[in-house]
Amino acid sequence: MNRIDIAILGLGTVGQGVVKIIQGNQKQWNSRCGATINIKKVMVRSIERTREVELPDGVLTCKWDEIISDPDISTIVEVMGGIEPARTFILEAIRKGKNIVTANKDLLALHGQEIFEASKVAGVDLYFEASVAGGIPIIAPLKQSLAANNIKQVMGIINGTTNYILSKMSQEGMDYDEALQRAKELGYAEADPTADVGGFDAARKIAILASLAFHTRVRLQDIYVEGITNLTLEDINNAKELGYVIKLLGIAREEDRQIEGRVHPVLIPITHPLANVNDSFNAVFVYGDAVGETMFFGHGAGQMPTASAVTGDLLEVISNTINGYTGRLSCTCYEDKVIKSIGEITTKYYLRMHVLDRPGVLASIAGVFGNHGVSLASVLQKNGSPLGIAELVVITHMVKENDIQDALAVIKEMSITKSIENLIRVEGN
Amino acid sequence: MNRIDIAILGLGTVGQGVVKIIQGNQKQWNSRCGATINIKKVMVRSIERTREVELPDGVLTCKWDEIISDPDISTIVEVMGGIEPARTFILEAIRKGKNIVTANKDLLALHGQEIFEASKVAGVDLYFEASVAGGIPIIAPLKQSLAANNIKQVMGIINGTTNYILSKMSQEGMDYDEALQRAKELGYAEADPTADVGGFDAARKIAILASLAFHTRVRLQDIYVEGITNLTLEDINNAKELGYVIKLLGIAREEDRQIEGRVHPVLIPITHPLANVNDSFNAVFVYGDAVGETMFFGHGAGQMPTASAVTGDLLEVISNTINGYTGRLSCTCYEDKVIKSIGEITTKYYLRMHVLDRPGVLASIAGVFGNHGVSLASVLQKNGSPLGIAELVVITHMVKENDIQDALAVIKEMSITKSIENLIRVEGN
Repeated sequence: MNRIDIAILGLGTVGQGVVKIIQGNQKQWNSRCGATINIKKVMVRSIERTREVELPDGVLTCKWDEIISDPDISTIVEVMGGIEPARTFILEAIRKGKNIVTANKDLLALHGQEIFEASKVAGVDLYFEASVAGGIPIIAPLKQSLAANNIKQVMGIINGTTNYILSKMSQEGMDYDEALQRAKELGYAEADPTADVGGFDAARKIAILASLAFHTRVRLQDIYVEGITNLTLEDINNAKELGYVIKLLGIAREEDRQIEGRVHPVLIPITHPLANVNDSFNAVFVYGDAVGETMFFGHGAGQMPTASAVTGDLLEVISNTINGYTGRLSCTCYEDKVIKSIGEITTKYYLRMHVLDRPGVLASIAGVFGNHGVSLASVLQKNGSPLGIAELVVITHMVKENDIQDALAVIKEMSITKSIENLIRVEGN
Repeated sequence: MNRIDIAILGLGTVGQGVVKIIQGNQKQWNSRCGATINIKKVMVRSIERTREVELPDGVLTCKWDEIISDPDISTIVEVMGGIEPARTFILEAIRKGKNIVTANKDLLALHGQEIFEASKVAGVDLYFEASVAGGIPIIAPLKQSLAANNIKQVMGIINGTTNYILSKMSQEGMDYDEALQRAKELGYAEADPTADVGGFDAARKIAILASLAFHTRVRLQDIYVEGITNLTLEDINNAKELGYVIKLLGIAREEDRQIEGRVHPVLIPITHPLANVNDSFNAVFVYGDAVGETMFFGHGAGQMPTASAVTGDLLEVISNTINGYTGRLSCTCYEDKVIKSIGEITTKYYLRMHVLDRPGVLASIAGVFGNHGVSLASVLQKNGSPLGIAELVVITHMVKENDIQDALAVIKEMSITKSIENLIRVEGN
């Protein structure tokens, strides 16, 4: 009977989840992947800390050297997170011929190329299902089941914190601060929620998904990012009135070998499959030229969902290892497509602005739009305030981002304009 | 540069889709799977027929012998469908060491064990993603990404024809006959729609999914089947009033190492992810002990979605072949759990019946239910007709199927009972 020795780096929430799964199904591993799994070492910062799981004496260690120099350890599960020392450890392990399973989106989005190239040279496995959308299988389907497609679009709710906040605002009429507070109480948002609400977490994930989908290395700095902090209940209610829901989406699209990657709030039609994905759930919508529309839904974070993805990868790596077949599914970025700047993208826009409530104002604004090639699909003039200010809500037809920004720069300076309240992109129809 | 010779059995809708994908992406196969793909032979019934795709002279053949005896052909793509001669061809090819990609749910649901065992003995690949839910990746995720889970439930809309019919009835108030007629006009339903509307197509697919999910061979005859032909607009509207949608679901569930497999109409809450899957779309909802709820959505049929799944499998097999690594992912039915009969299942029930509209009737009926351990969650008494007949709509709490059937046998014979109109199971909350 085969036995595979592994090491786990990090015994936080996810690491403990992985240990629970491995220990809880010990009798079945041989049937499932052809070997028993032995957690030989777990690297932690403090051995003494109280944890949810128990491990035999001597398994916990603070010394990387005990792991890297152990030739029996063939696979490293990295669930410590962060850039360093994870990057150094992973690169060293790869060079020693050890296979890697990682949940580290930050590392892959920033240093993916270096790590993939190292794994290719060393001929080891590098699996990272848990790095995007937690427990939802999306990396493997893009690499395998959907491999016959030319993927045209990947669009996803890939941050549970912001989806929870937006769901509460939309469904219960909470304002942003109240919904954020609730998210913090439930442990969905961290004390400093910037990475989530600023869109940076989602940006890392869409960089990884775009790289896979378009076979081109898309780096974090290639992704345009806007968070949800400027969204108001007015926008959410206007959207509802117009038949849309507002979601924070990661969007990656290819057209004519040009790629766009962006994270920002989006109005999507209430009939779109992503529109009904609420609370902290994640979902990734993929459009392929053969398969058409497909969507993957589930828990994008949390101990056990993330551990499910990590351990699923681990079983693959173990199966590959005992069959002498590691290193096959390495980097799939064999192309080098052009990456567009945000100004070059084309989409529809929702615009909410305050203008003087007097005759001719709409005509003036529509005129500026017309001069910049921006054509309007719908205009909603909301009740004027007693102060003689009207709210104008406009949805455009397809237009280039640069063109609408140029038009807005002109409109902003007009005396009839009081304020541009919000500009939100419209997708999905 | 590697070249892999393949043969395709059948050049109908799906076969032509596979040829389109292979021909349309010829330059990319080497990057995607490590080899170019050469369609050496395609087996057809008539060489002369006009088709959407063009193949070089000599590729089309009516002779199986030209394929089976060609040692260069390492992989067979079976998209002819039906039991024979597909079964014989596949078994012969496996014994000759050829890998198989098949979309044939009928064959796998009926003869899966024989075919899996043969492929294991021969050490060849047997891939079948397209056999369930068309283009949606579900077989591979169950085998790989979700492999760390003990799957507790698989529940899916896995027949597009019936989902289209039920969507039209529910959303547009069409009656069953009208919706079926529309489905026929659109090519969603066949002239003889029995396999779809009778639930038999879905039964094949849930047998395959259950086998994978529970690591136990579940055969077609193990699945309880009811179709949608008895559903009326009354039931659909009652369901809506109570906060439910009616869908035809394939359900596979495990509890305490006992499996149930069934296909029948189901009331699911409108908030359930499956409730918003409309028209001819399919979706498979999976509950695993680690990942929790997850769902896979997309086109469950059609030329290109099905060809996407077939060709995705083919790329895997080719990659395995050039790496000398076929035969790893064979049968995963290493357990032999008990399969329950329908009488043993426990769920909730929606019951619609006609009774005499007079005092004490409800008490009598509730009394019979009570005697059989059936407890009621809600009772809706609809307006009595001028003829002194009332409609009673009841939803039960969890109850064993045998118990409610026993109660209904008694109620049916009571003089106050005019008719049992429908009994529909309630799931998903």
